[in-house]
Amino acid sequence: MRYYAGIDLGGTNIAAGIVDETGQIVGRAIVPTGAERGYGAVVRTMAETVNLAASAAGIDRDSVGSIGVGVPGAVDLDKVRVVEAPNLAWRDVALASELEALCGKKTILGNDADCAVLAETACGAARGRKSAVMLTLGTGVGGGVIIDGRIFSGCGPGGLEPGHMTLVHGGEPCSCGNRGCVEMYASASALIRRTKRAMDMHPDSLMWEKSGGGLSIDGKTAFEAAKSGDKWAKCVIDEYISYVASAVSGLVNIFRPEIVIIGGGIAGQGDYFIKPLNAAVKSRCYANKLISPPETVAAALGNDAGIIGAAMLCMQKEDIK
Amino acid sequence: MRYYAGIDLGGTNIAAGIVDETGQIVGRAIVPTGAERGYGAVVRTMAETVNLAASAAGIDRDSVGSIGVGVPGAVDLDKVRVVEAPNLAWRDVALASELEALCGKKTILGNDADCAVLAETACGAARGRKSAVMLTLGTGVGGGVIIDGRIFSGCGPGGLEPGHMTLVHGGEPCSCGNRGCVEMYASASALIRRTKRAMDMHPDSLMWEKSGGGLSIDGKTAFEAAKSGDKWAKCVIDEYISYVASAVSGLVNIFRPEIVIIGGGIAGQGDYFIKPLNAAVKSRCYANKLISPPETVAAALGNDAGIIGAAMLCMQKEDIK
Repeated sequence: MRYYAGIDLGGTNIAAGIVDETGQIVGRAIVPTGAERGYGAVVRTMAETVNLAASAAGIDRDSVGSIGVGVPGAVDLDKVRVVEAPNLAWRDVALASELEALCGKKTILGNDADCAVLAETACGAARGRKSAVMLTLGTGVGGGVIIDGRIFSGCGPGGLEPGHMTLVHGGEPCSCGNRGCVEMYASASALIRRTKRAMDMHPDSLMWEKSGGGLSIDGKTAFEAAKSGDKWAKCVIDEYISYVASAVSGLVNIFRPEIVIIGGGIAGQGDYFIKPLNAAVKSRCYANKLISPPETVAAALGNDAGIIGAAMLCMQKEDIK
Repeated sequence: MRYYAGIDLGGTNIAAGIVDETGQIVGRAIVPTGAERGYGAVVRTMAETVNLAASAAGIDRDSVGSIGVGVPGAVDLDKVRVVEAPNLAWRDVALASELEALCGKKTILGNDADCAVLAETACGAARGRKSAVMLTLGTGVGGGVIIDGRIFSGCGPGGLEPGHMTLVHGGEPCSCGNRGCVEMYASASALIRRTKRAMDMHPDSLMWEKSGGGLSIDGKTAFEAAKSGDKWAKCVIDEYISYVASAVSGLVNIFRPEIVIIGGGIAGQGDYFIKPLNAAVKSRCYANKLISPPETVAAALGNDAGIIGAAMLCMQKEDIK
């Protein structure tokens, strides 16, 4: 059996895992990122986290073939430099070569959303599919696309950013400088904003009870109140699903994938969210009477997708050679 | 020199050309489609049009390697059947094998928008580029994408339909059954609708004069009045450019192409349209401070793109083998 190290590099934690050829994590370690210590310190911690994961797996470091890293930002076309990672305050750093020097292992970088969809396609919700589109609904909206079993992250630098396609021309201003981006309507943050607005307008809503009197409003608040029969919460959810469906069907009309995967905390709402979303997406896809639209499903691997997908970058690289 | 036949199959005319390896049309013929005569008659006319084009080129039919057809509709993944061509009232017909039987030449099908972008990339406005996104602004909005020098028309059947991505969630109803599609705001038809509305509201607008008192309002009306200083026409154009820019920047954020090509009659407005559009697209692309956005240019081949691109389908097919 061959093993690869996968590192899910986050703004808060560095999670590393030793992953076998089948996509199983056989050992893992998680260490705070401590980005405020600066780039060099973080790279050393990444190398140590890989060693810890190898120990946890009970395998020799030499058995690890190479290292893949999922980066929260843009990587260059050669997959060796981080172009920018805003959460880490990194810009144009030679991460792959520096990790290689520390670990003595070939290292390849990828965008974290790309890693997630790669993992879901290899051994998660889209196992066995040759093409997939994934949207991750979190603070923002990230996305990844698989074409012919491989990551498609655009033809040039900058990465695939479906969260910054326009969904409402002239709509709410986005941090990217544009207006009406998908992310302003389909992210968990957008759902929370809409939940708050609806609560302000409806003091009788169950959303108040579900959020401890408004003290802890999150992406679950409206879902829980809606499930308990609150009509205002139901409106918030219906509207949210409608926005997500418009974003997803637009991507289906472009990529015609075999399957659509929804990731992020909100996907954890399961069928209550995914079933109506799936129906709404299908009803909006172009030529849906003639060509059966793809299923929309929830991601299956949760946080592990980051580690597994990062390790998969190594396996894909070996494939190419 | 090798030659290929390219057929641009339209609802009104069948245009065929004999195209050499460099993308030059060396002979052509154009014959009315007569779709009302039914599928079989149209296929026979297509074969005859190829013969006429070969005669016009002064070359022997035997010198023509194979035939490519640009179809105004969806073709199957094997590029041999037309799934649906609404303007011809065709559904699931074996066009390639039937043309092969009539002409004795290998035949390959492609979507007409795909042919256009292929031609522009091979020998038009995007010559020498390995990736491109093209939007054709006409009655509707069609589009084609080139990745790594080859057509990308989606992973499954249905074709790439950027005209049916949502640009205004909950906006104007589209004939596809969805609402707020790109095509409802960025097509020439949409520009004409907005021109008419602005004229109704502003009896003093120069658009009345430019359209013969409202008798011939088309995609040029607002442009001509705006160029003559009419402020209401300028508003129509500014708004139109803003919609097109949102659609284009969304596609740039997905495909990160080297170049964006705008086709259709409106692209004929030249710099007056393309310059502000280019500026607006660049200002909206994600991470435009960090990564230089692609240029947006007007298509260069006009109606010839259909014939040349159809012939290019044959050349690409030979490449693959």
